[in-house]
Amino acid sequence: MTIGERPQYVVGIDFGTLSGRALVVRVQDGAELGTAVTEYAHGVIDAALPGTDRRLSRDWALQVPADYVEVLRTAVPRAVASAGIDPADVIGLATDFTACTMVPTLADGTPLCEVPRFADEPHAYVKLWKHHAAQAQADRINDLAKARGEPWLGRYGGFISSEWEFAKGLQLLEEAPDVYAAMDRWVEAADWIVWQLTGTYVRNACTAGYKGIHQDGRYPSEEFLAALHPDFTGFVRDKLDQPIGELGAPAGRLTARAAAWTGLPEGIVVAVGNVDAHVSAAAAQAVEPGQLVAIMGTSTCHVMSGDRLVEVPGMCGVVDGGIIAGRHGYEAGQSGVGDILGWFVENQVPPAYVQSAEAEGVSVHEYLTALSADDPVGSHGLVALDWWSGNRSVLVDHELSGLFIGMSLTTRPEEIYRALVEATAFGARMIVETFARSGLPVREFIATGGLLKNRTLMQIYSDVLGMPLSTVVSQQGPALGSAIHAAVAAGAYPDVPTAAAAMGGRVTDAYRPKPANVAAYDRLYRIYRELHDHFGRGDDVMRRLKAIRREASA
Amino acid sequence: MTIGERPQYVVGIDFGTLSGRALVVRVQDGAELGTAVTEYAHGVIDAALPGTDRRLSRDWALQVPADYVEVLRTAVPRAVASAGIDPADVIGLATDFTACTMVPTLADGTPLCEVPRFADEPHAYVKLWKHHAAQAQADRINDLAKARGEPWLGRYGGFISSEWEFAKGLQLLEEAPDVYAAMDRWVEAADWIVWQLTGTYVRNACTAGYKGIHQDGRYPSEEFLAALHPDFTGFVRDKLDQPIGELGAPAGRLTARAAAWTGLPEGIVVAVGNVDAHVSAAAAQAVEPGQLVAIMGTSTCHVMSGDRLVEVPGMCGVVDGGIIAGRHGYEAGQSGVGDILGWFVENQVPPAYVQSAEAEGVSVHEYLTALSADDPVGSHGLVALDWWSGNRSVLVDHELSGLFIGMSLTTRPEEIYRALVEATAFGARMIVETFARSGLPVREFIATGGLLKNRTLMQIYSDVLGMPLSTVVSQQGPALGSAIHAAVAAGAYPDVPTAAAAMGGRVTDAYRPKPANVAAYDRLYRIYRELHDHFGRGDDVMRRLKAIRREASA
Repeated sequence: MTIGERPQYVVGIDFGTLSGRALVVRVQDGAELGTAVTEYAHGVIDAALPGTDRRLSRDWALQVPADYVEVLRTAVPRAVASAGIDPADVIGLATDFTACTMVPTLADGTPLCEVPRFADEPHAYVKLWKHHAAQAQADRINDLAKARGEPWLGRYGGFISSEWEFAKGLQLLEEAPDVYAAMDRWVEAADWIVWQLTGTYVRNACTAGYKGIHQDGRYPSEEFLAALHPDFTGFVRDKLDQPIGELGAPAGRLTARAAAWTGLPEGIVVAVGNVDAHVSAAAAQAVEPGQLVAIMGTSTCHVMSGDRLVEVPGMCGVVDGGIIAGRHGYEAGQSGVGDILGWFVENQVPPAYVQSAEAEGVSVHEYLTALSADDPVGSHGLVALDWWSGNRSVLVDHELSGLFIGMSLTTRPEEIYRALVEATAFGARMIVETFARSGLPVREFIATGGLLKNRTLMQIYSDVLGMPLSTVVSQQGPALGSAIHAAVAAGAYPDVPTAAAAMGGRVTDAYRPKPANVAAYDRLYRIYRELHDHFGRGDDVMRRLKAIRREASA
Repeated sequence: MTIGERPQYVVGIDFGTLSGRALVVRVQDGAELGTAVTEYAHGVIDAALPGTDRRLSRDWALQVPADYVEVLRTAVPRAVASAGIDPADVIGLATDFTACTMVPTLADGTPLCEVPRFADEPHAYVKLWKHHAAQAQADRINDLAKARGEPWLGRYGGFISSEWEFAKGLQLLEEAPDVYAAMDRWVEAADWIVWQLTGTYVRNACTAGYKGIHQDGRYPSEEFLAALHPDFTGFVRDKLDQPIGELGAPAGRLTARAAAWTGLPEGIVVAVGNVDAHVSAAAAQAVEPGQLVAIMGTSTCHVMSGDRLVEVPGMCGVVDGGIIAGRHGYEAGQSGVGDILGWFVENQVPPAYVQSAEAEGVSVHEYLTALSADDPVGSHGLVALDWWSGNRSVLVDHELSGLFIGMSLTTRPEEIYRALVEATAFGARMIVETFARSGLPVREFIATGGLLKNRTLMQIYSDVLGMPLSTVVSQQGPALGSAIHAAVAAGAYPDVPTAAAAMGGRVTDAYRPKPANVAAYDRLYRIYRELHDHFGRGDDVMRRLKAIRREASA
C-alpha cells in the first residue's frame, strides 16, 4: 500500500434504479467523508415517453441517459464539498450500475434517444433492468439453446433471462428494425457511464459474463443467432463485442469534459464499470467462498464467490472473475422485494392506517411493521408468493405473478404486509438451499441495502433462514464497494481483497435466529415451497393469466 | 281472495345480519306503502362481549336477542306511520330471519345471555349464521354420518355445515357444558322472534329441514348422537324437538305485549317463522321448478323449487316444503359475497381513492366499480377464489380461505376489486352448473338483494353465467316475501303461489349477456374452476394454514 503523507481519497458512484449517489471515501481506512444523491429527473418511464403521448405497454421500463450524466454534474461535486476535502486529493473514481440496463448508441456513444428522429421511439431509450417485455424472445432463446445443447446454458441455471442483453436486443430488432439498424453499439449502462467519464469504451467482465453470455472467452455463435432471426446473425460482431476489462482494473483516465462535470482532477484513474450488487461484496469484505452477500432493496441480488465451477439450477449465472478477479462469481436474485412492499403501501393500505402513521411520525412501512411485529408466527394464516415482478432465482420466469392465500374477513392489512415480508424471506431461503444442494454451502449470510433499516424484517429473515445474519457497516454498500475498486484501479492496493480488508467492514451475528420462530417458520416455509413448486414448476396458470392479460390489453 | 271494501294491509319484517326492516304492504296488489329500519345496537359481536373484556376467538360471531325485540318496538311503528295507514287495517304479520342463527333459552324462551350468571359467557349468546367456530364438530358429524351411512347425509350434498344446529349445539356442549345443561331449548332465531310475538313456540319447516336435519319426519337418531358425545344423546329430545309448522301457516296470534311493542292490533295472525332467502322466492314469483332466486347481499343464498327429489352434491339441502309447501325446496349458498367486497373496501383501498370517491360524492364501492367497468375482460390478469368466509356450495368447507393470483407491480386496487366481483360470479356459476349436472337445469336466474344496485356487477354476473338475469321489482325482497306469507296466513289468499302472483313481481331479461364477454369469461372461469378444484378438493393447504393460524393464535 502506497500512501503519501496526506490522506488520499476516492469517489464511488452508485447508479440505482431511481437515483445516483456519490460517496467520498478515504483510501487509508474506508472512512466515508461525504455523500450526495441526485434523483433521476425522469425516474423510471413505464407509462408514456417524456414529452410525448406514446403510451408504453405493461412490462416496459425505460430511462433517459442524460439523467445519469446529471448525477456526475451534481452529486459528485456536492459529495466532495460535503466531505470538506480538496478535490486535488482524489486519486480515482469508480462506478457501479443497475444491470442489465442497456443503452443503444451510435458509434461515438451518443444514445439513440438523443438523435432527434428517434425521440419518440421507445426502443431508442435505455431499457432498465426491470423492463420485462422481452419474455417471448427469452423463451425462444432458451428453447433454442436447449434444443441445440448450447454449453453455456448451464452456466445460467438453465435459463437466459428476459432482462438480459440478448433477449432485450432481439426484442429491439424484431419490434423496431430501423432502430436496430441505426444502432452501432448495444452498451451496458455500467460501461456507458465509464465511456462518458473516460472517452473509452471498455466492457466490464461482470456484465459481459452475467448478462452478455460471455463464457470461456466466447459469446453464442453466429449459427445460434441466425437461427433466432436471420438479421440477428451479426449481433455480437456488430453491436456487442468489445475489449473486456477485469473488475478493479483501470478503464482509462478522466477526460477534461468529465473533469469539468465532476470538479475532479483531469487524468485521474477511472475503474472498469461494475454492478451495484457485485461491488457490494467488497464493501462487505465477502471475498471468501461461502460468504453470500444479499443486497436487499427494490430487488435483492445475491452474490457469492466460489473456488470452483459448479452449475447451480436457476442461478442468474456463474462467471469467472465476475465478482472478484480470479474467483468464480455466483449470482442469484429476487426480482421483487422492496418494490412489492412499496406496491402494497401505495395500493393496499387504508386511510386510517396512513393517518395513524402520519400522526406517529413514522412511515407507513414502519407503521405496518410495528403493528404485526409481536404477532406469533403463523397467526395470520397467510402465505404469499413474492412474484409481483416474476421470479429470477431459482425459476427464472418473469411470466410468474403474485399470490396471496389464506385471507379471511378478519385479515388485517398489517398481516398481509407481514406475509409479503415473509414471502421474500422464503424466496431468499429457497436460493440459499439451492446453493447448498449444489455443493456450495452458504456459511455466512451478509445483508446490505435499504431494507437493513427495518430491524423486524431482518429478524424475520434470520428466523426464516435459521441462521445468524451479518450486516455491512456502511449505509452505502455499493458506493463504498465502488470506492474500493477505485482505490485498486488507482494502485493504492494490489487487489480487491486487500483493499476490502482495509476499507470495508461488517458486523457478524447482527441478528440471531429465535429457535421457536425458526420451528414455526419451517412449517410455513414448507407451504411456501409447495406453492412455489406447484405454480412455478407444475401448473402454468400464471403464464396463462399473463397471456390473457396481454391479449385483453392489446 | 276475500277483500272487504277498504284495503287491508300486512307487515313483513326482515331480520338481517346488521338490522331489521319492517315493510307495510297492501294485500290486494303488493304495493309497498311504508318501511323503516332499525340497526342492531350490538351489531355482530366478533371481538369482545358487550360490557366485558371477554375476548372471542376468531371465527366467532354472536348477537344479542334484545336487539331483535327493539326492531319490533321501533321499526314496525315507524313503518306503519310512514305508510300513513290505520294500524287497525293490518290483518297479519310475518317475519323472516338469517339462518342458521341459534338462541339458547330457558323453557319460557328467555335467552340464556339474559340470565345474570351467564352474562359474560359467550356460549349463552346468539350464535349468528356466520359463527364458524364449530368446524371441528361439523367434521366429526360428517365423518360419523359417512361411516354409518346415514340416509339423511345425501340430502345435504354430503356435508352438514358448521353453521347449522347440530354443529353449533355440539360445540356448546363440549366447550360450555354448564351452559348446555342450563339450556332448555335450542331455538332458531326465526322461531324465537315468532315466539316473542305469539307466546307460542312453533318450529318452521324451513329451518327444521335445512338447518336441523329433519328429513322424512325424523331427526338423526339417539344412537348417532350418543356416538358423537355421550351427553349429546338427548339433544333432539330435550333441546330441539317441537311441533313443526308449514310455511305460510299461522303460528299464533299477536299477544297484548307484542301488540304494545308494535302498535298493531292484538290478536292478528302471525305466520310461522321463515328464512330471508326462502321468503324471497315468493316476492320474486319464483315458485316453478327451474326458477332460481339468488338473494345477493352480505352472502348469497340460492333457492329453487323442484317437482322431484334429487340429491345434488354440495348443496345446502333439499327439504320437502322447505320453500313452497308441497314442493321440494333446494338451497345453495355462497358464504361470502358483499362482505368480501366490504372487507376489501375497508382494508385494501388507499387514501387517494377514498378521497376521490368522496369528491365525486359516490361510495368507494361505486368508485372502484366505475374505474374498472370499461376494462376488457381479463386485462387485469387476476383470478380470485371467493372463500374469505369459506365455501358453502358446492364444497361445504369453512376451513377454506381467500386467494388472489396474478398480481404485478402495475396491478391497481380497482382491478383486484373487479377480480373479487368476478370470483363471486364464478362461484354462482359453479352452483348453477352443479344443479344442471344433477338434472335440475336452472331455466331462469332471478336476482334480488342489496347487490342489485351495482349494475356493473349484475352485468358481470350475466356475462359470467352466459344467461339473462331477471330482477325482483321490490327493493325489499325478503320483507315483501314475508308480507306475502302474512297474507296467506291471514287467509287473504289460499296459498303462497296465488299470493305471489298478486303481490310479487319481477322483470325478466333485465340484463342480457354480451357474447364477447361471455367467451372471455369462459377462459377465466376455466382457471377459476381449476383453482377451485385444486384448493377445494385436492391440496389441503388452506386447511393447514387455518390450523396453523388457530394454534399460533391460541
